[in-house]
Parts: sequence; structure tokens; C-alpha cells
Amino acid sequence: MLELIRRDGLARVCCLDTRRGTLETPCLLPVINPKIMTIRPRELFDEFGVEALITNSYIIRKDPALREKALDAGVHDLIDFPGVIMTDSGTFQSYVHGEIDVNNKEIVEFQRDIGADIGTVLDIFTEPSWGKKRTSEAVDVTIERTIEAASLKGEMMLAGVVQGSLYPDLRERCARRLSELDVDVHPIGGVVPLMEKYRFADLVDVIFSSKTGLTPSRPVHLFGAGHPMVFALAVLLGCDMFDSASYAKYARDDRFMFSEGTMHLKDMKRISCQCPYCRGQTIETIGRMSEEERARLIAKHNLHESIKEIENIKRAIHEGNLWELVELRCRSHPELLNGLRRLREHKDYMEKFEPLSRDSPFFYTGPESLDRPAAYRYEKRFFERYEHPGADILVGFEENMRPYSRTYASEMRSVTEKSDAHFLVMSPFGPVPIELDEIYPIAQSLFPQIRDQDTETRTRRLMEEMSHRQKYGMCVIWEGDDTLEILASIALGTSKFDIDRARIRAVADYQFGKGASSVLFDGKVTLVKSKTTEKIRNVYVNGDHVLSMRANDGFFTVRPKGAERLRKGFMPPRLRVIVNKDSAEFNRAGRNVFCGFVIDCDENIRPYDEVLVVDESDNLIAIGRTMMTRAEMLAFKKGLAVKVREGIST
Amino acid sequence: MLELIRRDGLARVCCLDTRRGTLETPCLLPVINPKIMTIRPRELFDEFGVEALITNSYIIRKDPALREKALDAGVHDLIDFPGVIMTDSGTFQSYVHGEIDVNNKEIVEFQRDIGADIGTVLDIFTEPSWGKKRTSEAVDVTIERTIEAASLKGEMMLAGVVQGSLYPDLRERCARRLSELDVDVHPIGGVVPLMEKYRFADLVDVIFSSKTGLTPSRPVHLFGAGHPMVFALAVLLGCDMFDSASYAKYARDDRFMFSEGTMHLKDMKRISCQCPYCRGQTIETIGRMSEEERARLIAKHNLHESIKEIENIKRAIHEGNLWELVELRCRSHPELLNGLRRLREHKDYMEKFEPLSRDSPFFYTGPESLDRPAAYRYEKRFFERYEHPGADILVGFEENMRPYSRTYASEMRSVTEKSDAHFLVMSPFGPVPIELDEIYPIAQSLFPQIRDQDTETRTRRLMEEMSHRQKYGMCVIWEGDDTLEILASIALGTSKFDIDRARIRAVADYQFGKGASSVLFDGKVTLVKSKTTEKIRNVYVNGDHVLSMRANDGFFTVRPKGAERLRKGFMPPRLRVIVNKDSAEFNRAGRNVFCGFVIDCDENIRPYDEVLVVDESDNLIAIGRTMMTRAEMLAFKKGLAVKVREGIST
Repeated sequence: MLELIRRDGLARVCCLDTRRGTLETPCLLPVINPKIMTIRPRELFDEFGVEALITNSYIIRKDPALREKALDAGVHDLIDFPGVIMTDSGTFQSYVHGEIDVNNKEIVEFQRDIGADIGTVLDIFTEPSWGKKRTSEAVDVTIERTIEAASLKGEMMLAGVVQGSLYPDLRERCARRLSELDVDVHPIGGVVPLMEKYRFADLVDVIFSSKTGLTPSRPVHLFGAGHPMVFALAVLLGCDMFDSASYAKYARDDRFMFSEGTMHLKDMKRISCQCPYCRGQTIETIGRMSEEERARLIAKHNLHESIKEIENIKRAIHEGNLWELVELRCRSHPELLNGLRRLREHKDYMEKFEPLSRDSPFFYTGPESLDRPAAYRYEKRFFERYEHPGADILVGFEENMRPYSRTYASEMRSVTEKSDAHFLVMSPFGPVPIELDEIYPIAQSLFPQIRDQDTETRTRRLMEEMSHRQKYGMCVIWEGDDTLEILASIALGTSKFDIDRARIRAVADYQFGKGASSVLFDGKVTLVKSKTTEKIRNVYVNGDHVLSMRANDGFFTVRPKGAERLRKGFMPPRLRVIVNKDSAEFNRAGRNVFCGFVIDCDENIRPYDEVLVVDESDNLIAIGRTMMTRAEMLAFKKGLAVKVREGIST
Repeated sequence: MLELIRRDGLARVCCLDTRRGTLETPCLLPVINPKIMTIRPRELFDEFGVEALITNSYIIRKDPALREKALDAGVHDLIDFPGVIMTDSGTFQSYVHGEIDVNNKEIVEFQRDIGADIGTVLDIFTEPSWGKKRTSEAVDVTIERTIEAASLKGEMMLAGVVQGSLYPDLRERCARRLSELDVDVHPIGGVVPLMEKYRFADLVDVIFSSKTGLTPSRPVHLFGAGHPMVFALAVLLGCDMFDSASYAKYARDDRFMFSEGTMHLKDMKRISCQCPYCRGQTIETIGRMSEEERARLIAKHNLHESIKEIENIKRAIHEGNLWELVELRCRSHPELLNGLRRLREHKDYMEKFEPLSRDSPFFYTGPESLDRPAAYRYEKRFFERYEHPGADILVGFEENMRPYSRTYASEMRSVTEKSDAHFLVMSPFGPVPIELDEIYPIAQSLFPQIRDQDTETRTRRLMEEMSHRQKYGMCVIWEGDDTLEILASIALGTSKFDIDRARIRAVADYQFGKGASSVLFDGKVTLVKSKTTEKIRNVYVNGDHVLSMRANDGFFTVRPKGAERLRKGFMPPRLRVIVNKDSAEFNRAGRNVFCGFVIDCDENIRPYDEVLVVDESDNLIAIGRTMMTRAEMLAFKKGLAVKVREGIST
């Protein structure tokens, strides 16, 4: 069973329960060929901390001695590994060598009988060159065999492989059907040829179409992905498990793997790697090694580098800077960059998983950064949810955004307060009205001053789109950095524009949806500001504390009185997580909402959104932040659905 | 004395002779505060392999006990370090604390007397905020003090600091004047405030204006640069030495340095670093450490990371992929990316140091890649040196460039051979006629298929520029990837266009300059091709072997008969390196040309160009590849100037 621990969009750190303990994902399962053990499984466990590996049941079964020992003593004894053992079924061998002499039933039973912790269906490897009909038939066979395997698996966890070649509809259909079956892990199969040919844009499409059909509550394994340079991108798209034969295969071919790509020993002029295995080595010392010694050294390097990258990725998920890491990694090879650029085709899907905000600032790394769902979210919500307060003059102001530097904001404010002008920053995210300039990602972003053309074009396009959509008496687009000139260009007057009132309205609509501001602020509004930063801290309406504003991301946390207003103002299930009776009494006491207890949820809820926890009669039970989307809450059997901040006692 | 070992543009691996042995640059000199030794100098030497460090003579001199011991036993004994010790003079302290109580003469003599291997002038720290007059006066004082210091230095090597704030002319003037003095190392000073404020675009300008004025034969030290994230960029611009107090300062502030930026311990959710110091540590174990223990751990991590980055950079210089590394690193922070983008202002200067080709392919990492001097070189030479062979039809063909894949070339060739068409690839480098499609960087490049707007615009702009400049009967711009369509769009005929003849002419003019093809191929031309690749290998004219064509970069190596033709066809010093008599007899025997023996050189020679080695009477002595530009050959006192391939006996 899978439990979500931490997430960033589709990327996630999870715990997977197995009968040999809990595996933390993302994780890498080194491949052990039972006949050629470049690094022994026991070394993997002791020296590298590897808790799970994958070996091949087909190879074991084909060799009479191995087969007998495996059936007799179990696969863990056979290869001497105390951790989780996943076995592959022979599908890849049938792809490489053509026909194989075992059927699905036989190989699934064999995996079960030798004590594999996770066994794999004998699926049909759908190749990228295949036509649609052939692929569709292969998908049907794969589904049938998965049904058969599920009936045979016993105590073994079962990996049901998503196939469908490059056809998005077949991938999605296969994934959707497999999600209904009693399967525990979902490898995405048939992708090795794409990775071998560096067809990363196609790989991106395949992962998306598979993910679209899969239930979110099971781990997704990218079958055959063993190069650390692809891990970050794959995790970003929601892959949880990888397996690598490459660390050993590359080593036998004198190739060093790095998260920035591969280097062949013969092209290396120096050993700059400082890993525990390479440190102190030179081209000469390595050159003097025997072939086997060298292969072991390079395999250990490759494994170290791969495990390190998995650790980097986990850390990035925890710290909220996975996008930056992925955009760095994807510059290791132009084809990876091509894969990254393909993400823009999947914005709508990604936005569903995009958190409200992140702990790390939004760092621009290239034109691709503006294809991140964080930018798309802003653009969408600005046009859908933002309403112009009706000032007479609009001044578009182009400024380099800097995190935490409030210079331009205070400049704008001083101008705003002295005139009728309503200020907008012409930013790469789109037009930013002064009321929204403290929310994520606007205030927490940094761009280079020297812009690229894609960013320039986007900035102007969104500005023009706004001019068309919103009605203003006058629109002056001003560019530059000399505030005096702006001041001079605007007739000075007494301010009629209340920036604070405008801010709470704009942020409320942006965060909770159009109409939220009317619901929340109906009455006499009083604001409490921070004495040091002068930022809004608390919002009272008719004396009730309805909202607090967070300094780190500029969004609201909801207080009980605010929650009550939202509940009354919006029909269920808007902004709600509906829990069953068993949960309700705990949540009222301030305890968190867990997955098994959720009846329904607003499907427009995004991770880290503020939510109202209600019972089936729409009584307010608690307020908190959701960790999940609706689909996730309903699919997961365990784990935190809503982090409750405040329970509401009856 | 400095010797150039390997280079990539302005970046270089050198050996610096000191009285305590040879230092390999680029190198990092950790800063040791004699009063707070977070890591002891002996540990630096033994554990980290640090061969040189920097400490502060002003601090030593101010403390009576330290001062006495230093004067008595020497600075090496004082801090217990057997390697090279550079000392700073107190300039930085005067910048931080205002006035200091020592003058230039006193501190230079003190450094000399305590046995510093490299001592530093008490220069004036020119701050970025200073006006031009104040800066100019400070530069004058710095120069005067350097003159004084040079007269006092004795056996000590002297660091003469380039100042001039942000004024390029003052920086250049200072650098030029210092280059005339008896100085051994050139720090670029006054840059710490730029680095502290992440003003990397300004830093780039400062380095360029300093480098422009400095003699190439002395090491350039970027004073105060201690963060590994800037090393790659600084080395790319020609910096050889760095010093870091940051590894310890950051550590005392709980900040971890990575080549991708800085992380504060409090923001780190996990320790993913696998360095020998962090490995096995967790946030918890580090949290339980004493402040001092933690500072030592983080300092060691920081130093390890910094030294690792220096090693990465050296490796990249040797392997020819430093640009790719720099472009990766500069995406760690938007302000670094801004610095990278500033390089486009310095293309002309960089092109002078740009090698003819590299061992590594040209990998696009973003729109900035097309500002590399390799791209600028192609654009320039295409318009200056390429002459269209006069076919009737020009077809512009847009295609993703792939390294080593000759698919499009063979497609084009098959069309070319069946028609009168002359093919051009519409590429991001500019128009590529089929004759030039095998040279670096064209054939050795890789771009993502999904293009950015800057690349699109550049591709089209250069294509249009060509249409205007070159006269064609007809110009069809064709875009797509279906060769059949092109075939259909062109009237098939018998080929009149001899691609091989056109190729040798185009490459010769591109490589040696306009007119080279007429000189080289005057007579009956015979080509020898590779049987396996069908590529041109050798060119004979009237039965003489004049040129060979290299498979790896598509350029020519010159044979004696070809050299003789070039010598006769071009006036001295074109394509020549002129050596003195002492050298000539050795070079005739096939030995390399060393710097001290060069009298003059063609100033249009670029690194790795083919050159004619001649004596003062213009007799051909040898043929080889130059390692240096003219200015370098004349400035360096030792090291390889021309790698001779073939000596010409009289």
C-alpha cells in the first residue's frame, strides 16, 4: 500500500509497504543478473544501502541449477539479498530475442513460488514502431494476462505493466483498465527503445498518457530507466520507481554515468569525480586495472551517482525546487531539453496537481520556465478571477522581478497613493496588478534582466490580451525604471484607490474563486497590519476574524468565521472535503483528515489549498490545508488528506 | 613563470612556477585567518591536497605575538603549511573597516620578510559606487604603489591588483600599466561587492576589461571569488586563480555551498550530499553537533565541493566542453544567467581566442548557446569567406542538426546530384551550404527539435541576410522533413554541380581565408576518398599531396606542398609563425616551436589553426598547429607555441 508523504505537483515522496518493510520512493532498484553479478546483492545492501532490487525470474527459471535452488531456498537466499526483491518476467527477453519458452501462468506462478516480493506479468512489449492495430491487440493480451496473474499472485505483490506504444489513447485505456485490477505496482513498459534513442519528447508523452489513466494510489515504475540524467524529469511527471541494469552494463563498456550525461573512459582526459570510488583514481590507475576490476569500479561509481541523484530529487521535492533541478538536468543533452519543452503540451493536466505555493522561490532558468504550471496557473486565474477595481488610469510598468525586494512595489504604491492611477506590472507571468504582487509566484520569483524573446513575447501577448479583455478609461504602457517620469506623467491627486481593500478582494478571488471576496468581506472590514513590514496580517469583518494573510506566499489562511462565510456563500462541494462520521469527531478535535475517511471533495481543490472539512450534511467540522487532489484523496487508502489547522466544535 | 598546458578559448590550464614548486591552475587558494582556523592548514595540505593558500599579512602584523613568530620562523612555520603561501595586504580590511595603520612599503616589506611566496600590493579597493574621478585617482595610487612594491619584492612573487571599479577604460588602463611592471600575478580587485550582490553581469564586464589590458602570460586571480557556482564562468573568461574565505565563513553561518548555489541548513529538509563529510549525516545528526563541530563539517563540505568544481572545470577544458558546463552552472541562479547573457557583448574579443574546433560536440543548452564565439565565428566567416558556386537553385532546408548523423547530408546529396540545385541548410548557425556541412561546429552540433524564438529569429535573420548578399537565380525556402517533396519540387536533371570540388574550395577559404582555394587548387586536382565513409581524405594537385582532410572536424591539415603554395600565395605574416634562428634548426627536425623563440605571428591566427613556421627570410621551416594567439606567443616566456607536425628539411 502506498502512502503520500510529500509532493510537488505530480512528483512525490511516498512510502510503499511490502512484506519486507517499507520502501521510500522515488527509489532505484538496481538490476541483478543472477548469472553476472558485477556488484553482489549483499554489497548493494550493506555498502550502498539498497533496500530493493530487481532480478530476472525468466533467467533463473531457464537455468536448472538456479531454478532448483530458487524453488528450494527462495530467491532471497539464491542471490543473498535480505531486502525487497522484484522480479521481471521475461518480457524484455522476448522483445530482444523474439519468442520465449514460458507462458504467463507459468512465470507468474514461478515468481510467486520463489518468493519474489513483487512479481511481474508477462506483458507484451509494444514497440515504438508498431502500428495501432497490432499495439491495440497487444494491449488486450497484456490486460488479459494481468487478470490471470492477479488471480495467481497469492501473497506476492503484482506489477501490471502499462503498454500501448506511442498511442496516447491506448496507453490511457490500458492504464485505466489495469487500475481496476488487483495490481500493486504499475510499470510503464516498452520505453527502453525511446530512452536508447534519446527520444525524450516521446517518453514524456508516454508517461503523461499512462499517468492519466492510472490510479494515483499505486507506485509508477518507469521500466528500464536507469540513467540518472532522466530521473529528475521522470519524477516530475509522477514516476516513483526506476530500475537500472545500466550501472553495470555501462561499466562493462567503460562508460561513466553522471546526472549530466555519460562519458566514455576513452574520451575522459581526467577523473574529476570525487565519489568514494573515483577519488584518488587517475586515468592511469584505472588504465592499469584488469577488465573486471575496472568494471566493478565504474559500476560502483555509476550506482553511487544514481543513488545520489535520487537523494537530490527527494530533497528537491521536500524543499520545493524540483522544477529548477529538472530544468538544470534537462540541459545535459539537447534531446532532454526537447523532452522538457514538450511539457508545455501537458500544462492543463499538470496544473491540476500544481500546489498553491512552494517554499522555494520561482527561479527562471530559461524560456521553458514560463511553461511551468505555476505560470500557467497565474495566467488562467488572472483572466478568470481578477476584476479590475475601476481606476481611471492603468500604467503598465515593466520591472525585473526580484524575490523579497519590495522596491518596485513601494514605488508603485507611492504613485498609486498620490494619484488615481491603478498600477500593473508588465511581467513575464502576465499583467500583475498591485493587489496581487505579494502572492506566489509573483513576489517569490527572479528573472535575469537580459530577457529572451519567448519571455518578451509572452509578456506582451498577455498584456495585450488584458487590454482587450478589461475595460479601462485609459491605458498607458510605460517601460523603464525611473519613477520620477511616471510621477510626472500622471496628474497628481488625492488617492481614491484603497490598495489594501483591493488586495484582500483580489487575493480572495484568486485563491478561492470568483465571488469569494463578496462572500467574505460583506460587512465592515477592518485590517490588522504588521508593525514591522506594514503587510496585512488579519482581516476582520463586522468584528469577526475571518482570514489571516501569510507573509511567505501572500495567500490567506481561513479562520472559522471566514470558513462559515465561504460555506454559506458557495454550494457544496465547492472548497470542501466531505468526511464520514468516523472521521468527523476526530477532526472536530483538531486531528487531521486521512484518506480512507473522505467521501468526496471539490475537484477544483489543488494541493495546499485551504479547505473546509464538512460532514455529509454540510456542517463545518474543521479547517485545514489539503495535501491532495480529489482523485488522490479518493484513491489512496491511507495517508494525510487534509492537514487540519482548527477543529470546529459543535 | 606561467606555462600554458591546455586551453579552451580564454580558459586555460597552466603551470605556475613558484619557489615551492609548480601550481596547476585553475586553482583555489583557501583563505586562512591566522586567528580562526576552521580547518588547519596542515589538514588542507594533507587531507584536501591543497597546494596553495592565502592568508592575511595585515592581521599577522597587527598581532604582536603572530608578528614576532612570523618574522622569526616565517609564515610557513607560523601557520604550519608546507605549500605555497600567498598573503593579502590589508586592502580588504581598509575597504571593510576604513583606515588601516600600515603603508604600502611597510606591508610589502613585511610580506617579503615573513617569507610569503606571493605577496600583494596595498592597492586601493575601488568600490562599484565610486565616481569616475575618484576611481581614476585610486587607480593612479594603485599603480604607484605597485611600482614601489616591485622595487621591494626581492625573491617574493608580487600580486599587482587591477582596480577601476565599473569603468572599463580605467580597468583596462590599470591592467595595461601593471602588465609593464615587474609583477607576477594579477588579481582583479574590488569585485567582492559585485559578487555579494549577485551582480554577475557587471562582474563579467569587469573581468573582460581587465583581461583586455593584461598580458596573457601572467595568472589572473579573481580576488575574493570563493563560491563554486562562479568558478566555471570566471575560468571561461580567463581567470586562473580564486581564493575562498567563504568555505569557512558560510560554514560558521550554517550555509552549504554547492556548484548549483547555496543552501542554509535551516531550509534543508534532507542531506542529499554524498561527499565524504556529509555522507551518512542527517539533519538530526548535524543538529546535535556543537556549533564548532558543525562549522568544521560544513567547512569541509564547502571546500570539498569547491575543489571538486575546480576539477570539473579542468576536465571540461581538457575535453572541450567547458561552454556546456558554464551554461549549466549559470542556470543555478537567474543573476548568473544574466551574467552569461552579458557575454554576447564581448563576442568579438572572445572570437580571437576561439579554437578552430573542439573534441566535444556543440550541445545547445538554451538561446545563449548561439552567443558562443563558435557560432559567431561561423556567421562571420560564412559572410566574409564563402562564395557561392553559382548553381541556379537554392533550396533552404530546415533540419534539426544531429552530431555524427549524416542523414540529412546524404539526402541533400542525393537531391543535389540529381538536379541543378545547390543545397543550403537553414540552421541556427546561419545558412550552411552543403560544402561546409562537415566542419566544426556544424556537423558536431545538436539542437532540440522544439526551438526557442531567439533561435528561430536568428536562423531566419541570417538566411535573409544571405539572400540579400548573395545573388541567386532563384531561391526556394523549403521547410519540412519529407525529402520526396523536395525532389518533386525540383526539376530533375543531370548534376552539373561537383560537390567534392566545391567542398574543398569552401573549406579552404573558410579555414585559411578568402583566396586560399585559388592558391591551393591551381592545377589538376585529384581527390582520395575513404572507402568506408566516402569522405575526402587527401587532396592532390598536379600529383602533389597538398592537404589532408580530418574526419573529426572537417578541416584540413596542410602538407609541405600545400604549405609552399600558401606561402607563395599569401604575403607574410599571413598564416605564419616566424621563428628565430635558434629555433629553426630544431623545427626543421620536426620539433615543436616554443614561446621564447617566436619573432612574430599572423594576428589572425586562432588556437589550433594550421600554421606555416618560417624564418625571418620567409623560408618554410615546418608545418604545425598553433596552440596560441599572436599576443600569447609573444608574451609567454615558455611553453608550446606551435605543435609541429612536419619539419621541412632544406
